[in-house]
Parts: sequence; C-alpha cells; structure tokens
Amino acid sequence: MQAGRKPHEKLEDYRYFLKDSIRQEINFTQTAQSRRLPAPPLQKPCHGDTVRIDLPEGLRSLRYCCRVPVGEAIMERESVRFYSDEALTLEELSALLWATQGVRHVLSEECALRTVPSAGARHSFETYIAVSHVEELPAGLYRYLPFDHQLLQLFLDEKIDDKASWACMAQRFVAGAAVTFFWTTIPARMEWRYDLATHKVIALDAGHVCQNLYLACTALGAGTCAIAAYDQAECDRLLGVDGEEEFTVYIAPVGKL
Amino acid sequence: MQAGRKPHEKLEDYRYFLKDSIRQEINFTQTAQSRRLPAPPLQKPCHGDTVRIDLPEGLRSLRYCCRVPVGEAIMERESVRFYSDEALTLEELSALLWATQGVRHVLSEECALRTVPSAGARHSFETYIAVSHVEELPAGLYRYLPFDHQLLQLFLDEKIDDKASWACMAQRFVAGAAVTFFWTTIPARMEWRYDLATHKVIALDAGHVCQNLYLACTALGAGTCAIAAYDQAECDRLLGVDGEEEFTVYIAPVGKL
Repeated sequence: MQAGRKPHEKLEDYRYFLKDSIRQEINFTQTAQSRRLPAPPLQKPCHGDTVRIDLPEGLRSLRYCCRVPVGEAIMERESVRFYSDEALTLEELSALLWATQGVRHVLSEECALRTVPSAGARHSFETYIAVSHVEELPAGLYRYLPFDHQLLQLFLDEKIDDKASWACMAQRFVAGAAVTFFWTTIPARMEWRYDLATHKVIALDAGHVCQNLYLACTALGAGTCAIAAYDQAECDRLLGVDGEEEFTVYIAPVGKL
Repeated sequence: MQAGRKPHEKLEDYRYFLKDSIRQEINFTQTAQSRRLPAPPLQKPCHGDTVRIDLPEGLRSLRYCCRVPVGEAIMERESVRFYSDEALTLEELSALLWATQGVRHVLSEECALRTVPSAGARHSFETYIAVSHVEELPAGLYRYLPFDHQLLQLFLDEKIDDKASWACMAQRFVAGAAVTFFWTTIPARMEWRYDLATHKVIALDAGHVCQNLYLACTALGAGTCAIAAYDQAECDRLLGVDGEEEFTVYIAPVGKL
C-alpha cells in the first residue's frame, strides 16, 4: 500500500469518512479484540539504552502552571504564530505534556485513563517534541513516555527548529517556537477494538488533545497554533516513524508570548 | 450517492484519511475559494417565523460559571454517564454554548473567530440541543445561533430524551441527560477552501469543540461523555438534516453531577 494511494477523488466519498454509517457494516464479533488477539501496547516500546529524562511531577506542574480559570482561558485562547525568545521551563513543559497525554489511572494492561478522552480509552497517540528553547533540555527530538512521565532523548540537533519548520511545508513561524509538538497515531491500537470505525475517532481524539494544549498554553502565558497542513513524508521521516503503522496526524508549535 | 456507500473495505485505505498526503494532490488554484465562488454562510439560515430565545450574555455566563482553574479542570475531567435530576440553568447552558461555538470577533462576512480553533476559521458546525431539564426552556429540540447567541426553537417534545437516546443506538444514559449536544457539519463550508483536504480537519475541529465542553462542564459541576457511536440516519432524521449537505458528526449528553 503506497502512502499516495487514496480511496476516491470525490468530495461525496470523503464525506463518508465523517459519518458513523460505517459502524453498521462492521461485524464486531470479528474484531481483533473480540477474537482475543493481544492488544497493541499503549506506549510504544523503547530501546533500553536510550537516554531518559525525568520530568517534574505532571499533576503538580499542571496545577502550579495553569491557575487561570477555565472561562478566562476559553475566552482568551487564540491561535498564536509569534513567540518570544523566552525559554519554557521544564515544569511548564511537564504541565503541557501531562495536560495533553498524562496518565491519570492505569486500570489494566489494556486500559488507562488519561487527561484527555479517547474512544474506548484506546489512546492511539505518541507525542514527539522538537525542543529548541526549554530550560535544562538540549535542542533535539524527544518522545514523551506518558506511563513513566519521562522524555526519551531521540537525537540532539541544534537545527531542529529549521527541520520542524521544513516538515511543516516551510511555515516559518514553526522555527520560532520553543517546542513543537508532533502527534503520531499508531492506528492498530484503535483498530484492535473498532476496526473500520477507527479513523474518524482518531481525528476526534487528536482534537481533544490539541484543545487541552491550547488552554494549558493560554493559562501559562504561552501560545500555540495547530497545524494540519504539513508534509506527511517529511514529518514521518523527521520523527523516524514508518508512515504506515505509525504516522504524523497533528502538529502544534508552542512558545511564550 | 447513498449514505451506505463507502470507498474501500481495508484498514490501510481508511488510514489514508488521517494523512495529509492528500493536500499534495489538490490543485489549490481550482478550489471554490480560488475561483471566487461565494462562501457558504457561516450560520445556517433560518425561517423568520421560528421562535427565537435570547440567551444570557455568553462571555459573562462563561466567566461566572467556569471559575475553576484550567489545571484543576484538566485533572478532574472524566467521561460521566450518570447525571442527577438537577436542571441546568439558562446561564449554565449559555456558558456551555459559548464555550463550544461562541463568536468572539467577526472579521468579515466570510470569517469570524470563535472560542474554538477551526482550520482556516471555516467553522463547519451547527449545534443542536435536545433539551430535557433546563430552567426556563420547555423540552424539545433547539438550534444554537452563534452569531446571535440565541436559540432557535425547532420543536417541543416531552419525549425528546428518549428520542435522543434512541438515535444514539439506545444508549440509555443519554436519556438521563439534562441536555444533549448534537453537532452537525456542513462540509461545503470547509470544502470551499480545502477541497479534499477538508474531512480530516472537520473531525479535528469537532474534537476541539468537545474538549471545551468537557472542561466547561467540569468547571460548572456537570459532566459529559462524548459519543461517536450513533445511528447516523436516526440522528440526522431527529435533527431534520439531509444527511449529505449537513449531517451529524459528534454527540455529547450533559447533566449536573
């Protein structure tokens, strides 16, 4: 299956994706879950020798950094494309990561509740961050490990800001961010339960995640601007994911105001 | 085009919907916007003789009702399926409607900024509410008019709770809600600008909207639970929409705790 392949060319056919009509055509007794196949892990495994960085405790960071009332944050939220040179603190980054993917309760190996809702609690995302200006973190690419509340240091790169910008079809404002969030999906996590009814809910879930980022940013004096227009192949290459079993779905640069 | 028609049967093909590869295949000089066709209206027109109900001012309602800090709300948010019999006040409903679709600034006839982000500020949604227990509002179906911050009274029905539940594939908890939000999309609003790159971003946008509802509910002592599993035809029939140019995309019952 090539990444360039697509089902149809017509708007009417693409609209179908947004409908839940598909659910009635799925034999739910034959999903991977119903056939008792093992569920894909809820956190992508990582090599034992990769550097891991502890983050300040997530819940405490979120409470400390995001004290603006919900009503004010919703009212003041806007898409921000200009950022100051001020670095984010590690505590602020911890708050943003916990706000977007933090694990609140582990119910079983196959189910954990997070700070965002997800269809069937399947949480199909991995969070990668391109770090340019975060205190105590050298510039480079990291992956968040929500079950450990740690960062995995994938590689260091002083030019990560330019590379992130390039992967976003050269939108220059991305290069000015202190940190850029790249969310990938591992669709098999959701397909295990929902089969063909998976893909719409993954996009809904990505919206939940990004809105929490917007409000948490607003509350801590930062700004973000969601990016849905990006170079799929370049992003996947930058993150080191295969583009089929894991691929980029949404992006959000963040910087202080 | 039948609602039951679908592009393909394979997971790999459906995954394509979540990628931005499609953007590279679109000739953006030929979109409706580039061809200077008129943009669809940002609020669905309504008949002049339908009853309209003024809502308490949106921004003030939101500020008054949602004073919990962002960090606390994100931490405490959970999907809630059991609601008390307590009615929502009209002010609380106003806060929830404004939090999810409120218009902050009208920039032009074709562009307005709302309390939620939307790709290209296209905001393709209409909000319908099935009202069971809201002070001052008789039970029935209403549509929110974000540019007027009013409700349009579509029809009164003491059994709207059961009908909403039925349209959600008989999920009984829906019938216990004080009010159930049904979001439809009018995809042409977004297609005007993005052509085939439209449909993923509509789902992302619906996630933004619903997450604001979650957090606003948490902040005012209510709960909600997003519903992506629903009977497409029954929902569209209940709302009186045609299922092609406008159709249901996401649902959220709300009740006091």
